[in-house]
Amino acid sequence: MISFINDYCEGAAPEILKRLEETNYVKTVGYGLDEFCKSAEDKIRKACACPEAEVYFLTGGTQTNMVTIDALTKPYEGVVATVEGHVNTHEAGAIEYSGHKVLTLPSHDGKMHATDLKDLLVTYYGDANYEHMVAPGIVYISHPTELGTIYTKAELTALHEVCAEYKIPLFLDGARLGYGLMAEGTDVTLPDIAELTDVFYIGGTKVGALFGEALVFTKHNMPYRFNTMVKQHGAMVAKGRLLGLQFDTLFTDDLYFRISRNAIETAARLKKGLKEKGYTFFLDSPTNQIFVTVTNEKMKELEEKVIFSFWGAIDADHTVIRFVTSWATRMEDVEELITIL
Amino acid sequence: MISFINDYCEGAAPEILKRLEETNYVKTVGYGLDEFCKSAEDKIRKACACPEAEVYFLTGGTQTNMVTIDALTKPYEGVVATVEGHVNTHEAGAIEYSGHKVLTLPSHDGKMHATDLKDLLVTYYGDANYEHMVAPGIVYISHPTELGTIYTKAELTALHEVCAEYKIPLFLDGARLGYGLMAEGTDVTLPDIAELTDVFYIGGTKVGALFGEALVFTKHNMPYRFNTMVKQHGAMVAKGRLLGLQFDTLFTDDLYFRISRNAIETAARLKKGLKEKGYTFFLDSPTNQIFVTVTNEKMKELEEKVIFSFWGAIDADHTVIRFVTSWATRMEDVEELITIL
Amino acid sequence: MISFINDYCEGAAPEILKRLEETNYVKTVGYGLDEFCKSAEDKIRKACACPEAEVYFLTGGTQTNMVTIDALTKPYEGVVATVEGHVNTHEAGAIEYSGHKVLTLPSHDGKMHATDLKDLLVTYYGDANYEHMVAPGIVYISHPTELGTIYTKAELTALHEVCAEYKIPLFLDGARLGYGLMAEGTDVTLPDIAELTDVFYIGGTKVGALFGEALVFTKHNMPYRFNTMVKQHGAMVAKGRLLGLQFDTLFTDDLYFRISRNAIETAARLKKGLKEKGYTFFLDSPTNQIFVTVTNEKMKELEEKVIFSFWGAIDADHTVIRFVTSWATRMEDVEELITIL
Amino acid sequence: MISFINDYCEGAAPEILKRLEETNYVKTVGYGLDEFCKSAEDKIRKACACPEAEVYFLTGGTQTNMVTIDALTKPYEGVVATVEGHVNTHEAGAIEYSGHKVLTLPSHDGKMHATDLKDLLVTYYGDANYEHMVAPGIVYISHPTELGTIYTKAELTALHEVCAEYKIPLFLDGARLGYGLMAEGTDVTLPDIAELTDVFYIGGTKVGALFGEALVFTKHNMPYRFNTMVKQHGAMVAKGRLLGLQFDTLFTDDLYFRISRNAIETAARLKKGLKEKGYTFFLDSPTNQIFVTVTNEKMKELEEKVIFSFWGAIDADHTVIRFVTSWATRMEDVEELITIL
Repeated sequence: MISFINDYCEGAAPEILKRLEETNYVKTVGYGLDEFCKSAEDKIRKACACPEAEVYFLTGGTQTNMVTIDALTKPYEGVVATVEGHVNTHEAGAIEYSGHKVLTLPSHDGKMHATDLKDLLVTYYGDANYEHMVAPGIVYISHPTELGTIYTKAELTALHEVCAEYKIPLFLDGARLGYGLMAEGTDVTLPDIAELTDVFYIGGTKVGALFGEALVFTKHNMPYRFNTMVKQHGAMVAKGRLLGLQFDTLFTDDLYFRISRNAIETAARLKKGLKEKGYTFFLDSPTNQIFVTVTNEKMKELEEKVIFSFWGAIDADHTVIRFVTSWATRMEDVEELITIL
Repeated sequence: MISFINDYCEGAAPEILKRLEETNYVKTVGYGLDEFCKSAEDKIRKACACPEAEVYFLTGGTQTNMVTIDALTKPYEGVVATVEGHVNTHEAGAIEYSGHKVLTLPSHDGKMHATDLKDLLVTYYGDANYEHMVAPGIVYISHPTELGTIYTKAELTALHEVCAEYKIPLFLDGARLGYGLMAEGTDVTLPDIAELTDVFYIGGTKVGALFGEALVFTKHNMPYRFNTMVKQHGAMVAKGRLLGLQFDTLFTDDLYFRISRNAIETAARLKKGLKEKGYTFFLDSPTNQIFVTVTNEKMKELEEKVIFSFWGAIDADHTVIRFVTSWATRMEDVEELITIL
Repeated sequence: MISFINDYCEGAAPEILKRLEETNYVKTVGYGLDEFCKSAEDKIRKACACPEAEVYFLTGGTQTNMVTIDALTKPYEGVVATVEGHVNTHEAGAIEYSGHKVLTLPSHDGKMHATDLKDLLVTYYGDANYEHMVAPGIVYISHPTELGTIYTKAELTALHEVCAEYKIPLFLDGARLGYGLMAEGTDVTLPDIAELTDVFYIGGTKVGALFGEALVFTKHNMPYRFNTMVKQHGAMVAKGRLLGLQFDTLFTDDLYFRISRNAIETAARLKKGLKEKGYTFFLDSPTNQIFVTVTNEKMKELEEKVIFSFWGAIDADHTVIRFVTSWATRMEDVEELITIL
Repeated sequence: MISFINDYCEGAAPEILKRLEETNYVKTVGYGLDEFCKSAEDKIRKACACPEAEVYFLTGGTQTNMVTIDALTKPYEGVVATVEGHVNTHEAGAIEYSGHKVLTLPSHDGKMHATDLKDLLVTYYGDANYEHMVAPGIVYISHPTELGTIYTKAELTALHEVCAEYKIPLFLDGARLGYGLMAEGTDVTLPDIAELTDVFYIGGTKVGALFGEALVFTKHNMPYRFNTMVKQHGAMVAKGRLLGLQFDTLFTDDLYFRISRNAIETAARLKKGLKEKGYTFFLDSPTNQIFVTVTNEKMKELEEKVIFSFWGAIDADHTVIRFVTSWATRMEDVEELITIL
C-alpha cells in the first residue's frame, strides 16, 4: 500500500549511507569535537551567510526545542508560542518539565502575528502584578508551521523587530526547514532566517538524514557552558561524528535543498491532481503537507488503498485528512495516489 | 597514529550498515512501533531467557540513566550509587536536574558491596528524622563498572537480595555490557542479569552500534505511560526503526557477543604484552579497559606514538593512563602498541 | 486614607493574638505533630462533617497550590484550570517550576463549566497522539473565584461527576473560602465542599489568620510521604503549632464563619451604596470583591481619597477598579467610602 | 517534664507578641513592601555595618537555603557543602528538587576546611572532563554548624579568600546565628559575617521569632527578579509585614543579641554541671547544643525525667544524646536538669 503518512517514515539520503560506510573505520574523538562536525559547521555557516554562527548538533526536534528554550531563558521566564505550536501541544510537557511556562498566542493558520506578540508584551510590562507573573523570555515559531504554512520575509521581519525591541530572542523551529525554503513562492532564504532570528534549527530527521538537527546560534549567543547543559538534559551524543557526517553530506553540493525540492514538486503534482478531481483544501499549504476535507465515506474508501493521517473531524460527516510528501517520495506513487483519488 | 582512547570512537559493525542500506526505502511507522523494533525486542527477550521482558530503545547512556531513574522513582526518592558511579560523576548533574539526589556508597574498585547497601538502608529506616531525608528509591550499578571491573554472580545475587528485601529496584547500567559478558572468567550471563536485576540496559553505542541502548524491564515493571515520560525528557526517537534495526542485527547470530569478544581478546593480548614488559597495573580489569601506572617521562614518550587517556596523577612522578580496546580493535594495532611500549 | 485594597492587608482576629500570648511558653514538638494541630484537625473534620478527612497546614496560597498539585499528579500530568485561574496567572510559574503544565479552559466569570471540562477530556482521550500530550491529572477551581464569583451546588456537583467519571481529583482553592461560604444566596456548605471535592483548602491568610491555609484531603487520599514532599518544596513549618493554634481558634465557636460574615455585610452595604449612586458593576460578585467600571477622571478623583486596586482598562476612557472588604472592615469606613463616592 | 529538645519548641519573644497586638489594625501593602519591613531592613543594615546590604524576609530555613542556592546558581552548577551540611542531610532533597547537586566535602566537627574547598576547585578545573561534571557554583556553610561548633574569623577569612579567588559566592546559613554570635570566645561579629560572606541569613525561627529568616545579600548581589523566583518557589509571604515587624523588634535595642545570650548562659551552666558530674562530651560545642555520650542505661533513666534528643549510637552500650537551650530557657530548669543528672 502506498504511504503518505509522514516525512519521518523514510530512511536517509543514499549519499549519507555511502559516507557512513566509507568512514566506518575512521576513529574520531567524541562529543562533536571531530573533523566531520567541524566541516559541517563550516558549510552551514556558509549556507547561512553568517560567518559568526555557532552550530550544535542534536538528535531530535522535541529535544532541541527543550534544550534551547531552557538554556536561553532564566528560570522565571516562559516561552511565547501559538496555541498550535509544537511546544504547546505535542511535546508531552517537555517545556514545563524543564520548568518553563508556554505563554500562548492565537494561531493564524499556524503562524504568530507580530501584533499579537506586541500586545502580549505591552500587557505584561504594563501589569502592576508583573512580578507575580511569568516573564516572556523567548519567542518560539516554526517554519514551516505545524500546518505546513510559511512566513513571508515581511512577517518574519515584523516578529524580529518586536523581539529586538523587547530584547527577547526569536527561536525558529525548522524541523521541516528544507521544505519551507524550497516552497513555491517563498521570499525567505536561509540567510534571511539567520539574520532575522537569534537561534534556529535545520531539521535533518524529516529532511533526508537518519536523524539529527543542526541548531544555529546566529548572534554570538550560544549560552556559556551550553555543552554541559546539553549533557544535563541527556541530549549529548557520544559519537557526535554521526551528526557531523550527515550534515556535512547534506550541505555538500546543495544536497539538502535538492532533496527538499522533491517533496515540494511531488506535493505540487498531488495538489494539482486533487484540484482537478474537485477536492476541497482545508488550508492552503505551500509545502509538503496537504490538508483535504473529505466525506467520511470517502475517507473509509481511501483507507483501503493508501496510508495517510487523520487530522480532525469537521462535522458529523466530514473529516480533514493529511497527505505528506518527503525528500524520498516517488512521482509514480503520487500518480498512483491521484488515480486512486 | 594508533588510538586506544575509547570504545565510542568507532563507527558500527558492518552488518548494521549493510542492513541500513537494504532497508533504506522501507516506510515504517515512527516512535518504535515498527517491525524492526518488534523483531529486536523478541530477540532480546530470547537472549535474556526472559519472555516477559519489556524492551525500550533509547539513544545514549546518560539519557537512559536519567529517564529510567526518574521514571522508576517517586519525587522524594533518590538513587543509591557508588561515589564513582557514572550518575554521580560524569552526567553533568542530569539526575539532580530531574529532581533526584544521588545517595553515595563507597566504591570497591568501582563496585558496590551489598553490605554497604544494607547498612545505608538500615540506617535510613532507623533514623528518627527519615521523613526529612531523601528516601533510597532505586539502586544503580554498572557492569562492567567505570573501572572495567565486573560483578560475580554471588555479588549480584547479594545486591539483588538486599533490594528485594527492601522492595527497591536494582538498575544495572550496561553501557559496555557485551564486554562484561565476554570477560574471561566471568560467571554472569545475560539471563542471570535479567533475573537478578529489575531493569538494565544493553549498550549499543560502545559495542558495535552507531548509537542506541536497549533498556530491559525484567519484572513486568515498565512504568505506566513510560512512553510519555520518555517524550517529556526529549528522549523519544521519531525514527525508532533505526534503533530496532541495529539491535535486531546485533542479536542475530550472536553478533553482539562475537564482536564483544574481540575487545576482550585484544585486551588480553595487550595485558600480556604489558606484563612481559614489566608495566604495573593500577587495577586488575578483566574487560576492555586497561589501567597502567607509568612515570610521567614514559607517558610523554608514549603520547608521541599512540592515543590513550590520562586517568589521574598518582604522585608528582607517576600517572595512571588507560588503554581501551573495542569490538573494532585490530590485533595488528595491539601488536604495534606492544612494540611501542 | 481609608483602604479597600485587599483582604490580606490586615492583622489577625484578636482571639488569635490572645491565644498566642497565653500559650507562648508552652513547649511543643515541631512539624505539626503538636496538640494544637491535632485539636485544630479534629475541629476541621467536624466542621466538614468528614470524619476521615486528613488535614495538613501550610503557610500560603501559591505554596499550597503548588505542593498539592505536584504531590497529587504524576510527572506527565498537568492541571486543568480556567485561563483566569490563579495557578495560570499570578503564581510566577510555580506550577511549571514543579514540572506540570496548566491546561486551560475558558473562564465564565471566573468559573469552569463542567461541559468544557468534559470536552477537554473527551478530546484528549480520543486523540491518536495522546501519548505525546500532557495528560489531564487534576482539576483546579477556586471558590470564590479570582473574580469573587461562587459556584452553585449544582455546578460543583457537575464538575465532581466529570472528575469521578475520569478518576481525576477535583481540587478547590479556598483562599477566600469563608467569604464564599457566607455569601448571600449560596447553597454550598463546608460539608458540601468536603463531599464534592477530593482536596481543598480553607484559607486563613485572607480570612482572619496571621497566615496559614488548612489543606483538607477528603477521600483518604493524602499522598504517601506527603510530609517529605512538603519539606522538599521548602514548605514545612518547624513551629507547626502556630498554624494549629490559629485554625484551632478560628474553628472554635464558629469564629471563622462569624468574621467572614462581616466581609459580606460590609460588601453588601457598599454595593447598595454604589447602586444608589448609579455606578456600573463590571461583574456581579456576591462575595467581598466588588468590581466597578468608572471613567478615568472619576478614578483619579477617587485615588486621592481612598486606596483600591486598578483591575484593567475597558477602553480609552473607562477602567475597572476593585474594592475589597474583609473580616476586619469597619462599617464606618464603608459609610465614609460611600460618602466619597 | 522539663524539655531540652530543641530551640524551635518555644513561642516568641514577648516584645514581638506585644507589637503584633499594637499594630493589628494597621493596614499595610503586602509582599514585604510595607513600612515594618523597610524599618527592619534598615536596622539589619546598621547591625551588619553594611549600608548597601539588600535584605529579604523568608519563613523557614530549608526554604531559605533552597531559594537562595537556586537563585544564585546557574542550572549546571551545584552547591559545595560538608557531608553533615543541612542541605545535604535533612532537607528531603530540596536542593536536588530545584535541580542542583550537593557536592560534598569532609566535615570537621561540622565545619568546612578552606583547604578541602580549594582542593575540590583545583581538581574540578583541572579535570579534562569538567564539561561533563557539575560545576561548583556556590559554597554553603552554617554558623553555628549542625553540631553547634563555630568558625573562627581566620577560618571564615580563609573560606572567603578561596571563594573570592574562584568567584564563587559564599553562603552562610545562620539558622542559629544569634547563638553563634554570642558564643563564649568567638571572635566573629555580625559585621564580619557581612564582610566575609556574599549572602547569609539571620535565623528568627530558632532565635526568638514566631517564624522567619532575614536573608542578607551583602555585595549588591541580590539576583535580578529575585522576588519572582521567591514566588515561583511558593515562598512569598502575602503579609510580609509579619516578618518585618518581628525582625524590626528583634533588632531594636539589641533584643536579638540579648535573648541569644540567655541560651549561651544556660548552656554554659549546664556544661559546667555535666562536667562536675563526670559526663563525657562527644564534642566541644560553644553554643546552645550540648552533645554528651552516656551509657544506654543512663539514657533510659534520663528519659523518664527530661526530654532531649537521641543523636546517634556510639557502640552497643553507648549513645550520644543532645541537650538544647534557647533564648527562652529558664535557669531554674537547667538547675533541675543538673540535679536529675
